[in-house]
Amino acid sequence: MEMTSLHIIKIGGNVIDNSENLHHFLQDFTSLDGYKILVHGGGKVATQLSETLGLEARLVEGRRVTDIETLRVVTMVYGGLINKNIVAQLQRFGNNAIGLTGADGNFIRTKKRPVKTIDYGFVGDIDEKSINPENISRLLETGFTPVFCAITHDGEGQLLNTNADTIASALAVSLAKLYDTTLIYCFEKAGVLHDINDEESIIREIDPALYHELKQQQIIHSGMLPKLDNAFTAIGCGVKSVVIGRSDDLGNIKQQKPFGTRLSNHI
Amino acid sequence: MEMTSLHIIKIGGNVIDNSENLHHFLQDFTSLDGYKILVHGGGKVATQLSETLGLEARLVEGRRVTDIETLRVVTMVYGGLINKNIVAQLQRFGNNAIGLTGADGNFIRTKKRPVKTIDYGFVGDIDEKSINPENISRLLETGFTPVFCAITHDGEGQLLNTNADTIASALAVSLAKLYDTTLIYCFEKAGVLHDINDEESIIREIDPALYHELKQQQIIHSGMLPKLDNAFTAIGCGVKSVVIGRSDDLGNIKQQKPFGTRLSNHI
Repeated sequence: MEMTSLHIIKIGGNVIDNSENLHHFLQDFTSLDGYKILVHGGGKVATQLSETLGLEARLVEGRRVTDIETLRVVTMVYGGLINKNIVAQLQRFGNNAIGLTGADGNFIRTKKRPVKTIDYGFVGDIDEKSINPENISRLLETGFTPVFCAITHDGEGQLLNTNADTIASALAVSLAKLYDTTLIYCFEKAGVLHDINDEESIIREIDPALYHELKQQQIIHSGMLPKLDNAFTAIGCGVKSVVIGRSDDLGNIKQQKPFGTRLSNHI
Repeated sequence: MEMTSLHIIKIGGNVIDNSENLHHFLQDFTSLDGYKILVHGGGKVATQLSETLGLEARLVEGRRVTDIETLRVVTMVYGGLINKNIVAQLQRFGNNAIGLTGADGNFIRTKKRPVKTIDYGFVGDIDEKSINPENISRLLETGFTPVFCAITHDGEGQLLNTNADTIASALAVSLAKLYDTTLIYCFEKAGVLHDINDEESIIREIDPALYHELKQQQIIHSGMLPKLDNAFTAIGCGVKSVVIGRSDDLGNIKQQKPFGTRLSNHI
């Protein structure tokens, strides 16, 4: 039996912070066929609100530490302001969106990151038990389009800040059992580029062999490595393909034009 | 065929602002039999955040004017901070809560209040078309406990601030067609009192005839009139009973002890 298609799309600050980009993206998102899930991170609003409230961003090894005040800010901004405005806009386009944290419906249950040398604060780590695909499938099949912000819970009453890229890939891996799942990461480039200075030099398809080669040739640079490593992990766990591209170009999918860089097991 | 019971409970700042009260209330709420919906207003957090952000509360004839900045604050505080913390706590108690605005799932669609002499700003008024009971029924029957904050949308992409009491009563009226519906307003008193200074003097049952009498005797004072008028309107529209009581006493229902003041068509 052919499985229904599911697109899971993650957007970040570069889409959220620009209302025109966001509007355009949400229209294209709505026009995609099949089931859809949107995962969004934060944007500069959270940083601005933290600054206004006099909170200092604390980073350890490039990762934000989520103290209780920062958790309050992200719960307000990601879970309230950004999430609900996205939902209202999707509804306008006739997309029956429902805005969620991982606490809602117990959809994503995580574990507070253990304190080793660094205390990351109220950060939740996803494991293989975090997501019950049947729970989310019920929502999709009831006709809702879930819109997840990057907040989860521990099941003991505590909300936890969780990386949006990781949420998107965990959802994809979990739902790949039920749907023909494509995971799309929107970022600021048109795809993985042969030449970082040439936006036209998009590599359209990468399989593990080519990935190995591109790494050896140092065409894929340091910042892209964790993104692509995670993508190939998701593919190894059953996700059909992972696409990395620019949100502006999402409409290409509907028009059957090439969009971004597609990672999969076989070109 | 006997209809399933549904309790719709509205809480306000006096419950939300006190974490012990809230904890206690959420446990009692979870222990209620049958379907349940929670509706919550704001609390002092919204006022505090507005002050910190330098926004001035503008009231016209005792009603808050919702300018665009205030709408942002209530979306963050009601839709994010308060709503998601309530959901996380309910999940802890094993109650499969899902936190919503009226935009989510298009559950409550309102009209921006027209500007006559006063411009109330981004305020949404509920009418008889605002709520589709089948939509909400699908959520209940899927096993979710909806938790609504006092924000709705206009279907055109605009979020709107909406009175929580009105949301609760509109939900009750709409769902009374499908369920044996009881609407409960939690407030700071133990019920409607014979003597405002005596918390023991609770009037346990009021029907329209007694209500008329109590108004004539001026036992029911001005502040209670709109609450009770709305309650009897809901009853006139099919809601089985409306109960007004203190959140601390909600556990009485489970213990089959008297709780608050019950308004209904027949004592």
